[in-house]
Amino acid sequence: MQPKDIAKDTAKIVQNYLTYKAVMLVIEQLAETNPGEAIWLRQYSSGGKLRDAEAYLEDIMSDPRGKELAMRIMTVRRDIAEQTLEFLPEIVTSDIEKDNLVHRRSLLERLTRSQSDESSQSSSDISS
Amino acid sequence: MQPKDIAKDTAKIVQNYLTYKAVMLVIEQLAETNPGEAIWLRQYSSGGKLRDAEAYLEDIMSDPRGKELAMRIMTVRRDIAEQTLEFLPEIVTSDIEKDNLVHRRSLLERLTRSQSDESSQSSSDISS
Repeated sequence: MQPKDIAKDTAKIVQNYLTYKAVMLVIEQLAETNPGEAIWLRQYSSGGKLRDAEAYLEDIMSDPRGKELAMRIMTVRRDIAEQTLEFLPEIVTSDIEKDNLVHRRSLLERLTRSQSDESSQSSSDISS
Repeated sequence: MQPKDIAKDTAKIVQNYLTYKAVMLVIEQLAETNPGEAIWLRQYSSGGKLRDAEAYLEDIMSDPRGKELAMRIMTVRRDIAEQTLEFLPEIVTSDIEKDNLVHRRSLLERLTRSQSDESSQSSSDISS
């Protein structure tokens, strides 16, 4: 498993997720302007279809009702990508460092606790 | 749905995925050096436990066998993050642009095809 492969796999996950977010955003916008279309898109996008974003887009384009929606989803996901990706490396790096620290502290506490349990155990062994 | 919230949600997805990759990498390494431990870690990490990376790490640390493995997984995920995150925005942006183009072309072909079908239909109407 090379870093380049991991980067590619992670990029795929992010692309799928941003497409999912784009669909949710379009549904949200349609709910205000065209509720019928919002309901149609919500139903169309259910059942795990969005797990493969590119297959989903090809699929929705084959539906007469879905052509314009597909164009809109593609525009929105590109916009979301532009607005968010820049900050992603920094957020993930700092979150991982923060969470690693929390886990290390928690592990240290467990070890200290179990050691003090052991020493109180052995001192009670001696006194008995 | 604000860009900041989307960035945070996406960062969480990436952190989970990098932790999953770190676990897979540690299992791969252990398979060479300590096959029994590799089998144990693979079994421990199955059944969707890795969907919430932080809960998984807290959980594995509570197992006597898992303490050192948890430390190792945390180190590996930080290393993977360092090696890959930098390239992520560029890969995702260019992939989305490339895939959007592919979908737009495919949509254009469908529309052209259906228009030429219609016009050949109407010319056959005239000739008949």
